[in-house]
Amino acid sequence: MEAEIIAVGTELLLGDILNTNARFLSRELAGLGISVHFQTVVGDNPGRLESVVQMARARSDLLVFSGGLGPTKDDLTKETVARAFGDPLRLDAEELEKIRAFFTAAGRTMPENNRKQAMTPVYGRKIPNENGTAPGMIFEDRLSPGKYAVLLPGPPKELQPMFLNGVKPWLAAMSDSVLHSLTLRVTGIGESHLESKVGPLLQNANPTAAVYAKTSEVILRITAKAEDEAAAERMCQEYAQHFYKALGDCVYAVDKDSLEQVVVETLAAHGLTVATAESCTGGLLSQRITSVPGASEVFAYGACTYANGIKQKMLGVKAETLAQYGAVSPETAAEMARGVRAAAGADFGVGITGIAGPGGGTPEKPVGLVYAAACSGDITYVQRLVVPGRTREVVRISATQRALEMVRRLALKLPQPGCAAFAAEQPAHMPAEQAPAHNG
Amino acid sequence: MEAEIIAVGTELLLGDILNTNARFLSRELAGLGISVHFQTVVGDNPGRLESVVQMARARSDLLVFSGGLGPTKDDLTKETVARAFGDPLRLDAEELEKIRAFFTAAGRTMPENNRKQAMTPVYGRKIPNENGTAPGMIFEDRLSPGKYAVLLPGPPKELQPMFLNGVKPWLAAMSDSVLHSLTLRVTGIGESHLESKVGPLLQNANPTAAVYAKTSEVILRITAKAEDEAAAERMCQEYAQHFYKALGDCVYAVDKDSLEQVVVETLAAHGLTVATAESCTGGLLSQRITSVPGASEVFAYGACTYANGIKQKMLGVKAETLAQYGAVSPETAAEMARGVRAAAGADFGVGITGIAGPGGGTPEKPVGLVYAAACSGDITYVQRLVVPGRTREVVRISATQRALEMVRRLALKLPQPGCAAFAAEQPAHMPAEQAPAHNG
Repeated sequence: MEAEIIAVGTELLLGDILNTNARFLSRELAGLGISVHFQTVVGDNPGRLESVVQMARARSDLLVFSGGLGPTKDDLTKETVARAFGDPLRLDAEELEKIRAFFTAAGRTMPENNRKQAMTPVYGRKIPNENGTAPGMIFEDRLSPGKYAVLLPGPPKELQPMFLNGVKPWLAAMSDSVLHSLTLRVTGIGESHLESKVGPLLQNANPTAAVYAKTSEVILRITAKAEDEAAAERMCQEYAQHFYKALGDCVYAVDKDSLEQVVVETLAAHGLTVATAESCTGGLLSQRITSVPGASEVFAYGACTYANGIKQKMLGVKAETLAQYGAVSPETAAEMARGVRAAAGADFGVGITGIAGPGGGTPEKPVGLVYAAACSGDITYVQRLVVPGRTREVVRISATQRALEMVRRLALKLPQPGCAAFAAEQPAHMPAEQAPAHNG
Repeated sequence: MEAEIIAVGTELLLGDILNTNARFLSRELAGLGISVHFQTVVGDNPGRLESVVQMARARSDLLVFSGGLGPTKDDLTKETVARAFGDPLRLDAEELEKIRAFFTAAGRTMPENNRKQAMTPVYGRKIPNENGTAPGMIFEDRLSPGKYAVLLPGPPKELQPMFLNGVKPWLAAMSDSVLHSLTLRVTGIGESHLESKVGPLLQNANPTAAVYAKTSEVILRITAKAEDEAAAERMCQEYAQHFYKALGDCVYAVDKDSLEQVVVETLAAHGLTVATAESCTGGLLSQRITSVPGASEVFAYGACTYANGIKQKMLGVKAETLAQYGAVSPETAAEMARGVRAAAGADFGVGITGIAGPGGGTPEKPVGLVYAAACSGDITYVQRLVVPGRTREVVRISATQRALEMVRRLALKLPQPGCAAFAAEQPAHMPAEQAPAHNG
C-alpha cells in the first residue's frame, strides 16, 4: 500500500509551527509496513487544497490528512475530500449532541459554526475524538474503491490518540504481516557510547533496532515483522536480551513513557515515598513526578527554594554550610535532601542545587554545574553533574533526570554509579577536583 | 513571487527526522514577503523526484530545495533540477580543489564519488558552503526565464548559514516590498469568543491578522507588507490598536514568548515577589515561573503540597478548613495562598488546589475542577476553574495559566474578572452553585 501524508494549514507554510504530525504519522505508517512516498503541506486555500487532493488521489492508495477540521469557514479538508471521493456529508445528530455536551460541560453555549464539525460522511465512517470537538473520518473513494482517505485533527494531542486507537488497528487488519515494536529506555549512557557497545545489533534486518537520542536518555526501538502478533512479539523479546546483556541496569524501562512514570510505579510497588527540594530546577522535578497519574500516593512534599533564607527556614540547611561552601555545593545539596525528607517524613529525600544559567556562573562554578543529592534512612548519595554549553532548559531536564535515576536506584537498591556516599550525619564534602562528574 | 519548498530525503518519509528546514525556510521567505504555497517531501527516488520537480516548476516561480546534494548515487537533486531547467552541469575545478582541501585538512583522502559534488551549472551559479563539501546553487529556468530553483544541502548547520549569507540578499534585492509582523498574546478569552469580537478584523488584506489557539491562550499575528521596514512596522502598530480596543486588558503581551515571561518581567519592574503553593499542578507553576531567566529576583518560594498534613504543617492551612470544606475548595486555596505568602515573606501568594485526574473526581467535585487563589496584602481573590473532558496535562496548564494571569493583574492593579474577592482574614466562602466558573 502506497501512502502519502497531507497537512493542511497556513500556519505551517508561514513557519509558525513545525510539522510534527508528518513525522509521527510517517513513523507509525512505516511501523505498519506502509510506504510513505510524499508529505505535502498546503494552506487553507480551496483551489490549492483541491489540486493537492486530486493529485494525491491519482498517485497513492492511502491519503492521511492532518488539520482543517475546525469550525471556521477556512477549515476545508472534510468538504474537499468528500467532494473528490464522491461521498456526501450529512448532519450527524449524535455527533452534534456530543459537541453540544462538550460546550455545556464547559459552562458555555455551542457557537453555531461548530455545527459544521458534526457533518460526517454518508458512506465513510467517523472516528471518535476523545480530546476535542472535531471527529476524524475515513473515506473510501466511491469512484476508485480500494483508495482511502483518513482525516485527522491538527492538534497533536487529538491526532495521536485518534490515530493510535481509531486508525492503526484498521490499517493493521488490512495488512498481511504484522509488526511488533518494543521500546527500551536507557539512561546514564550517552548515544555514541551506547552505539559503540551495541553497534552490530543495530545492523540486523529483522528485527530491526534503531536508536533515538533525547535529552539525558536514549530510546532503543526494536521492531519485528512476522505472520502474527505473538510471533513478532516473541522475536522482539528475544532480541531485547542482547541489549539487556550489553547495557545492564542502564535499561530502566521497557514500553514505558518516561523515567518519572517508572519512578512513581517503582515507589508505589514498594510502598515508598519521596520528598524533593529544588533550587535551579525550580519545581521541574516535582512537576515531572506529579505529572504521572497516581503520584499523590508516593509524593509527599516538594519545596522549591531559591533564596538562602528560605533554604534555612523551610529545609533546615545550616547557615554555616551556606556561608562556607555556598548554595551550589555538595554539602548544601545533601542538607536540602535530608531537610526535606525530615520535614515531610518521607522515605527518600532529594536535593538539587546548581546554576541553570544563562547568568550566575563563575570560573569555579560555571553555568551547567549541578549537585544532586538523594538520601534514604542512613545514607546520602551526591552526584556532581556538568551540562556544558547548553540552555537553561537542557540543564534543568538533565539535572532532574539524574535525580530521578538516583531515586529509582535507591528504591531498587541498585548501585549508584558516579555518586559519592555519605553516612547520615556526615557532611557531604566532595572537593570539586576529585568529584566524579556525570556529563549531562 | 510564489514559492514552494521541496525537501528530498527518504529519512524524512520514514519519520526518522523532523523537517525543521521547511519551517526555517518558510519563516525566512515569509519575512521577505514571498508567499510559500506548498511544502513537499519526496524520497531519494528518481521518478518521484522528477515528477515533483516538474509539477513545482509548472505552478511556482521559486523552488527551494533542501537535501540530495551528497556524494552518493542516491543524491539526485542537482542532476534532476539541471535536466528540468535545461542547464547542463560541468566539473568545476575550483570547487573540486576546495573539496579535496576539506578532506586533506581532516587528514583524509577525498573519496572519488565526492567529485560529483564539484559539478556546477553552466548558466546558473554556485553558492559557497562554509560548513561542508556540497556547494549550493541557483538555477534559472532556461525554458521559462524568471523561474528559479535554489538548491541547499540538507544538514541545518550547512543550510541555514548558506541561505542567510548566499540566498537571502539575492532574494531581498529581487523583492520590492518587506513584511513586518507583530504578535499579540491574549488570555482569559476563548478562540471562538475572540473571533466573535474581532471577526471582521481578521478579513483585512494588508495588514493581515491571523488567530492561533493554544492551551489557555490565543495568539494573534498581524503582518503588514510595505515598501520599507519602518512603514510596515507602523502599519502593524496602528492595526493593533483595533485589537487593544476590542480585547482590552486580555491582551497581555506584544512580541513576548509567554505569560510567565511577562509575569516575571512585570514583577521585577515593580520590585515585587511571589510565593506559590500548589497541589494538583504539582510544581508546574513554580517551574513555569523559574523557567524565565532572572526569576530568582521575584520568586521567593514554591511549595508543592499534596497531603493534607503537609498543607497544615508547611502552609498553616487549618485542620477545620480541610475537614469542613475539603482539600479542593476555595477556602483551602485561599489559606494556601495566604500561608505560603506569610512563610516566604513575599508580596503575593498563590494557592492552587484541584482535581487534575484521571482519578479522584466525584459528582460534586469532578475531574477538571480547580480553585486558584492569589493574595496581596489585604485581599484574596479566588477563581473557580472548570476544565472538562481534558487530559491531566491540559488541566495543569490551564490552572497555572489562570494563576499567572491573576498575578499579572495583581501586579498591575487590574480588575480580576471571574474572581470572588475576600478581605485578609475572611474565609473564602464561595458556594459552588454561585461561583462564577472560568472555562480552562
